[in-house]
Amino acid sequence: MSDLATMSPTEVRALISKNEINKPTSGMCRGHIQANLVIVPKELAYDFLLFAQRNPKPCPVLDVTDVGSAEPKLMAKGADLRFDIPKYRIYKFGELVEEVSDLKDYWRDDLVGFLLGCSFSFETAMSNASIPIRHIEDNHNVPMYITNIETKPAGKFYGKMVVSMRPIPYQLITRAVQATSRFPQVHGAPIHIGDPSLIGIKDINVPDFGEPSIIKEGEVPVFWACGVTPQSIAMTSRPELMITHSPGYMFICDPKDEDLAVL
Amino acid sequence: MSDLATMSPTEVRALISKNEINKPTSGMCRGHIQANLVIVPKELAYDFLLFAQRNPKPCPVLDVTDVGSAEPKLMAKGADLRFDIPKYRIYKFGELVEEVSDLKDYWRDDLVGFLLGCSFSFETAMSNASIPIRHIEDNHNVPMYITNIETKPAGKFYGKMVVSMRPIPYQLITRAVQATSRFPQVHGAPIHIGDPSLIGIKDINVPDFGEPSIIKEGEVPVFWACGVTPQSIAMTSRPELMITHSPGYMFICDPKDEDLAVL
Repeated sequence: MSDLATMSPTEVRALISKNEINKPTSGMCRGHIQANLVIVPKELAYDFLLFAQRNPKPCPVLDVTDVGSAEPKLMAKGADLRFDIPKYRIYKFGELVEEVSDLKDYWRDDLVGFLLGCSFSFETAMSNASIPIRHIEDNHNVPMYITNIETKPAGKFYGKMVVSMRPIPYQLITRAVQATSRFPQVHGAPIHIGDPSLIGIKDINVPDFGEPSIIKEGEVPVFWACGVTPQSIAMTSRPELMITHSPGYMFICDPKDEDLAVL
Repeated sequence: MSDLATMSPTEVRALISKNEINKPTSGMCRGHIQANLVIVPKELAYDFLLFAQRNPKPCPVLDVTDVGSAEPKLMAKGADLRFDIPKYRIYKFGELVEEVSDLKDYWRDDLVGFLLGCSFSFETAMSNASIPIRHIEDNHNVPMYITNIETKPAGKFYGKMVVSMRPIPYQLITRAVQATSRFPQVHGAPIHIGDPSLIGIKDINVPDFGEPSIIKEGEVPVFWACGVTPQSIAMTSRPELMITHSPGYMFICDPKDEDLAVL
């Protein structure tokens, strides 16, 4: 993995597209943006773009492909969204019907791809600010929860917001807010700090996606809007087709995390 | 004007809709967001939303109406974009054909309204940071210039970015960058500081819109992306119909400038 950490995004995407890498992308191409993927037919693209516009905390848009094109020109000129992610999820009418390693059997000329900011970028900012990140320390997937927070609907899309949780030592919470506020395009500042029940989370030890993190004495659960929200929205809104990345298997972009800082 | 400065957005919008206010909105409803307006037919709405998404510095989207609805629900529940702005511009195939005080003769069931962030909000932030603003001191419209900076095209829309200019004392430039960086949804940090010719401005004393500002000894011209950009884009791209506000005659929103701060 140390090689993958220092390789360029172009090099790692090439290995992924040849199926020579088949694992979560966390830690690869250190310092470069990684992104969530959502693909919908053109007929639904306006509604989805509007949904993202109205819900920028869970769905901060980094790039949108032209109709029928799989090239995200702003985030990775020459890349191909059909092959450059290790694992994809296919949702039909809200049901997860398949996980695949490329989209050659699913691509159509009317599809539009969206890349959305991912928490990996703000975790880099937190690490740089000496804030420990439990799920990285313990080497498991971040815990994610479906909340009682309604997203703002747009056209066909509606549903609850998904959040990710990181336990933060109480004396570092202000620092965590500051470090992540600089990056609104990768979910930005937390949306909730403290009591999980206030946002509809019944049992913090039973996440809806990912694995639970241990919350130690003196630590407070801190919640950020999560790029898995579109998958929850697909389940609620049941669009004909939505293709996403598999959680943890992200698209690696050319620009760096710091390129997204607003200050 | 002092009354209008302290009245609520609902009250001022009511006066505007009855044609009892017919002047630029600068200084009205102090502390509340004011917004640029763009209205296009649904057929062009996806392209325009994508254009805004790809060009968030000049076109930061605050709200998008549902098709055929003139109510900007996020920024002003119950308001009516057809009547609540003092002066509108009608662009047909890129030509400014008329200025009107309401849209009753132009509204159609297929129109979509966009509210975009406006520099009035970051000027409040600058004032709060004790940074002088020349065009307010001298009581004239801010100078705006068409640059040589290409916007990122989207569908039918393309063209050059428009910027606004404020002369800033050299010892306050860092502060001006900091104060405006907090507000990416209202154009955020400057896009250029110093030599106007580097962004294609031939004569700083001859703006393309608004009026020139005097640049005094020890001051540096500082440039921000401008919400008049869509009007320049309309002239280049020549869409069937684009309706905008008249420069300076903005839509007054319910939320406050500070509600848009990212930190």
